Amino acid sequence: MNRFKKIFSSRISTDDEALSRGIKKITGITPKDIDVYRKAFTHKSMSLKDADGNPISYERLEFLGDAILGSVIAEYIYNEVPHGDEGYLTKMRSKIVSREHLNELGMDFGLIDFAKTQVPERNFGANVHGNLFEALVGAIYLDKGYKRTQNFISRRVIEPYVDIEKLEGKVISYKSILIEWCQKNKKTFNYHTYEDTGVNEIRHFSVKLSIDDRILAKARATSKKKAEEKASKRAFFALQDKISTQ
Amino acid sequence: MNRFKKIFSSRISTDDEALSRGIKKITGITPKDIDVYRKAFTHKSMSLKDADGNPISYERLEFLGDAILGSVIAEYIYNEVPHGDEGYLTKMRSKIVSREHLNELGMDFGLIDFAKTQVPERNFGANVHGNLFEALVGAIYLDKGYKRTQNFISRRVIEPYVDIEKLEGKVISYKSILIEWCQKNKKTFNYHTYEDTGVNEIRHFSVKLSIDDRILAKARATSKKKAEEKASKRAFFALQDKISTQ
Repeated sequence: MNRFKKIFSSRISTDDEALSRGIKKITGITPKDIDVYRKAFTHKSMSLKDADGNPISYERLEFLGDAILGSVIAEYIYNEVPHGDEGYLTKMRSKIVSREHLNELGMDFGLIDFAKTQVPERNFGANVHGNLFEALVGAIYLDKGYKRTQNFISRRVIEPYVDIEKLEGKVISYKSILIEWCQKNKKTFNYHTYEDTGVNEIRHFSVKLSIDDRILAKARATSKKKAEEKASKRAFFALQDKISTQ
Repeated sequence: MNRFKKIFSSRISTDDEALSRGIKKITGITPKDIDVYRKAFTHKSMSLKDADGNPISYERLEFLGDAILGSVIAEYIYNEVPHGDEGYLTKMRSKIVSREHLNELGMDFGLIDFAKTQVPERNFGANVHGNLFEALVGAIYLDKGYKRTQNFISRRVIEPYVDIEKLEGKVISYKSILIEWCQKNKKTFNYHTYEDTGVNEIRHFSVKLSIDDRILAKARATSKKKAEEKASKRAFFALQDKISTQ
């Protein structure tokens, strides 16, 4: 009996260490209370309950994380868009914390790899990624407090993903210009984007952009979107003469 | 010219001192950056602009305050309702931060007295009270940070106003029982509720509850609602025999 117990607890602790390392890699944060992160990656299909019989799953942390993320983004928008009235600020925030955007974040962070579930991954819709991301924010908040969570969101969400000028429609997307140009000129294009951590502590993505099977630009950044935009900008300037003489 | 300037700046500073004292009385917080509180009480009808030409009004702070209040209440609900799933937590939070509830808070705090506006008070709807309350939360957050704002919301909002068991429908409201009993028995009732700060640093309310013009109970609390509920409970026990034999 004792032997089983020992094996069981040593397995738990190995799992926890792997989770802790994974979170450190994604977020740059060293977990203190690993329990709360374990909860953030537990799907309700695991049917776990706490000592009081309350279900353990990431859903409740998702609720908390959504609220914390909402305030952090609200303050960011409040400072960045000094000319906007309440309605405009609300609109800008919805763009940033859109379901689509949260799913993209969760996917780029590869959060599903940490999820404990009885449901096969293929049976989940896209929203699981955004939900796990919100739950992770909730866990960081409970473990580290508001300031540290705000700092995490600035470094890992706002800086790599949010381009306020683009959201305000003030600057153009090089990727969309390029795609439009390709379509108009019957060129094939391909963005080959892949995870490329290299020597960095946090996750990076690299992209090779080919037009008509010729690699025209490469780029590397902390999000897929940013890497693709960077490569598109490079390709845009390489092609500039052709594009501007259309 | 110099004289005018002097008179003008001394008037501003007297206004600021009065505002600072008022905020201290309502919130228990001594403002550090008075500018941000002045903004929280400036209606857009004042048509003020900052150095960059951006309008100064409480609307933007209202947006920020709404988000901060939302997270603080989310964490409170998260801890207080361990059995609730995401949907239930969301529902509980909506009840607490309902428009009606925020307006009640703003009114109890008497925030309209600090408002700078060109619009006569009678022309405002009830929502101005809730909006000013949200803007005040935004101002406290910018002036004092998350922890202090959370502390203010706990002391001045959650503790006096939020009864989680009542919100969950687990306990009854003595006020509604009493009113129902009066109506059934053709009794007149009157809650005479008034501000009664007395010796306390923060605002208190007293209530005299009369049934058929006879004062049946008195109570005192930090919100009108709480004082009335307290008086109703006292009256309920005074009348208990009559009520239970209906």
